[in-house]
Amino acid sequence: MIDAIVGGEVIKTAAKAIVSLVSEARFHFKDEGLHSRAVDPANVAMVIVDIPRESFDVYKVDEEKTVGVDVNRVYDILKAVKKKDLVEIKIEDESHMKVKFGSVEYSVALIDPSAIRKEPKIPELDLPAKIVLDAGEFKKAIQAADKISDHVVFRSDETGFYIEAEGDIDKITFHMGEMELIEFNKESARSMFSVEYLKEFVKIASSGDILTIYLGNNYPVRLIFDVADGRLKVEYILAPRIEAE
Amino acid sequence: MIDAIVGGEVIKTAAKAIVSLVSEARFHFKDEGLHSRAVDPANVAMVIVDIPRESFDVYKVDEEKTVGVDVNRVYDILKAVKKKDLVEIKIEDESHMKVKFGSVEYSVALIDPSAIRKEPKIPELDLPAKIVLDAGEFKKAIQAADKISDHVVFRSDETGFYIEAEGDIDKITFHMGEMELIEFNKESARSMFSVEYLKEFVKIASSGDILTIYLGNNYPVRLIFDVADGRLKVEYILAPRIEAE
Amino acid sequence: MIDAIVGGEVIKTAAKAIVSLVSEARFHFKDEGLHSRAVDPANVAMVIVDIPRESFDVYKVDEEKTVGVDVNRVYDILKAVKKKDLVEIKIEDESHMKVKFGSVEYSVALIDPSAIRKEPKIPELDLPAKIVLDAGEFKKAIQAADKISDHVVFRSDETGFYIEAEGDIDKITFHMGEMELIEFNKESARSMFSVEYLKEFVKIASSGDILTIYLGNNYPVRLIFDVADGRLKVEYILAPRIEAE
Repeated sequence: MIDAIVGGEVIKTAAKAIVSLVSEARFHFKDEGLHSRAVDPANVAMVIVDIPRESFDVYKVDEEKTVGVDVNRVYDILKAVKKKDLVEIKIEDESHMKVKFGSVEYSVALIDPSAIRKEPKIPELDLPAKIVLDAGEFKKAIQAADKISDHVVFRSDETGFYIEAEGDIDKITFHMGEMELIEFNKESARSMFSVEYLKEFVKIASSGDILTIYLGNNYPVRLIFDVADGRLKVEYILAPRIEAE
Repeated sequence: MIDAIVGGEVIKTAAKAIVSLVSEARFHFKDEGLHSRAVDPANVAMVIVDIPRESFDVYKVDEEKTVGVDVNRVYDILKAVKKKDLVEIKIEDESHMKVKFGSVEYSVALIDPSAIRKEPKIPELDLPAKIVLDAGEFKKAIQAADKISDHVVFRSDETGFYIEAEGDIDKITFHMGEMELIEFNKESARSMFSVEYLKEFVKIASSGDILTIYLGNNYPVRLIFDVADGRLKVEYILAPRIEAE
Repeated sequence: MIDAIVGGEVIKTAAKAIVSLVSEARFHFKDEGLHSRAVDPANVAMVIVDIPRESFDVYKVDEEKTVGVDVNRVYDILKAVKKKDLVEIKIEDESHMKVKFGSVEYSVALIDPSAIRKEPKIPELDLPAKIVLDAGEFKKAIQAADKISDHVVFRSDETGFYIEAEGDIDKITFHMGEMELIEFNKESARSMFSVEYLKEFVKIASSGDILTIYLGNNYPVRLIFDVADGRLKVEYILAPRIEAE
């Protein structure tokens, strides 16, 4: 039996992160917390969601369990939940998950986990540059880039971190030097990515959230968002686009 | 001659309640206040609106009068009014109604009341269960139910009041026990209703408003909303849907 | 070289005013400030924008310069700027304009000014009536008028200033007497205008902004908006519509 109570912001944001890539996912209720991950149908991006045990108000998991969840439907219902509301998740048998908030109880049939697309292994990536910044600033940069191009270049060198997008007659450059970044190892790296994915990813981010970027050369990027005051970790891994010469 | 001044929230909400069912209605300026009622074209629901004399800042009605109003047009104009603005309603002859707010005067031709669909009698209904609750909570329940089904069951028994909606693979249950309800006579009753109507009705409700429900068995329900700090009473009567076995 | 820093509200509102009529315009960086004006493709309306030198935090203009700007694109990017953010405008050569805010630098190719439609001369208009009022009240009147008609009459006489719109069965009259107007010379005038243009114009106005109207008889009107706490002046000149007898 599983009985867990968590803040509305945490569970809503976790669901939002997953539905940006897939509609159904496996939820792993582990001793150390709730874990879920999935790859989008085009195999371009992976999302990895972790709500550590300490982020729950109550976290009773008799034995570790994996269930299949129609996250899309659950997210649709969770939209009505306010940030500070508490949400209870209860699984009493294999067949249903109950989501309770206020006077409402939502019960949804679970999906056989084996019927959900096989989960990805988390790849080992050797990414030289580490950049830590305010997720809200990153969000603004991606949203501005989206207005003029469908792809962006992330690059770093000793002068700082850059996001660049080029339109036909215009160009956007986002730049943060070492002083403006929270942490930066000054390594050089450069890769190009699709704005279409990035603009979905940043939807979970607000000013004040911390984003850690691991960047390589024409290589996938890792974007690790610490949101809801650090109670939720969402990592995205995004494959690069090939830069034309 | 009629000259009445009332708060923007009261008259806007009254108009909104009426346009949820019909576009034209009779307004009865009576000694005890303004009354209007109408039945929707499908004969499924009735709305009864009462603004008691005491809710008006000024209420001069030389003699009781009934006029036909294109409520849809008036509501469209009233949308610009703020909650705390005062609105003056003036009828100097049979032909026009004037609605004044701020520096704006809106004048609209009245409709011959006999050209408007005959008004319903208010049915006498013998409804055993009486449930009083926060209208905002009811609104949330209906909006959640709307996401998974087009009909809901209202039911009560000694354990409290329930709203239930069932989707193909999921189910929503709203439950308030005696302690959470403002008033409850613990009578048993059960009827099914169309969400399509209910979601229109709840648009006038906010958290803090009081809703009184009278519920029977496969019988129409009465939903009485006390809104705008009790200055406006809107009652809806909604026919039940037949429950399949 | 041009290097100017100005509040987000000022430059956003200036761009918004211009794009209500045209997508490209000439920007004149003069000693006394930034000036731009344009006429819409139908030759019905003119917009004249002035940001005086004193409204800038920094205003370095080596020599007066005129550049052609794709205002539509710039406005689209500026939407992300908050009111209180500072925006830097930099032109280092003839080819590009840079717009910087926060960590974002937007660079857009300039247009050859001679490729932009020839600028209008500002007509000399002999307009007897001068009416000064709160721009927010004017905005509400235009938005209400828009619901029932596609044209409005502005008129003034010794009893005050009127805006009138007539629908098939209804009519809106906005009236402010001398006491409610900020300034009024009590002259008589009357002209009719298209609501379609006016509702675009009022988008830049908020309650608290000052609007000065110069009105004549079947003659163009001048609408001078002082917005962003007086740091930006936007003037619209709108041709009248012919009133049918």
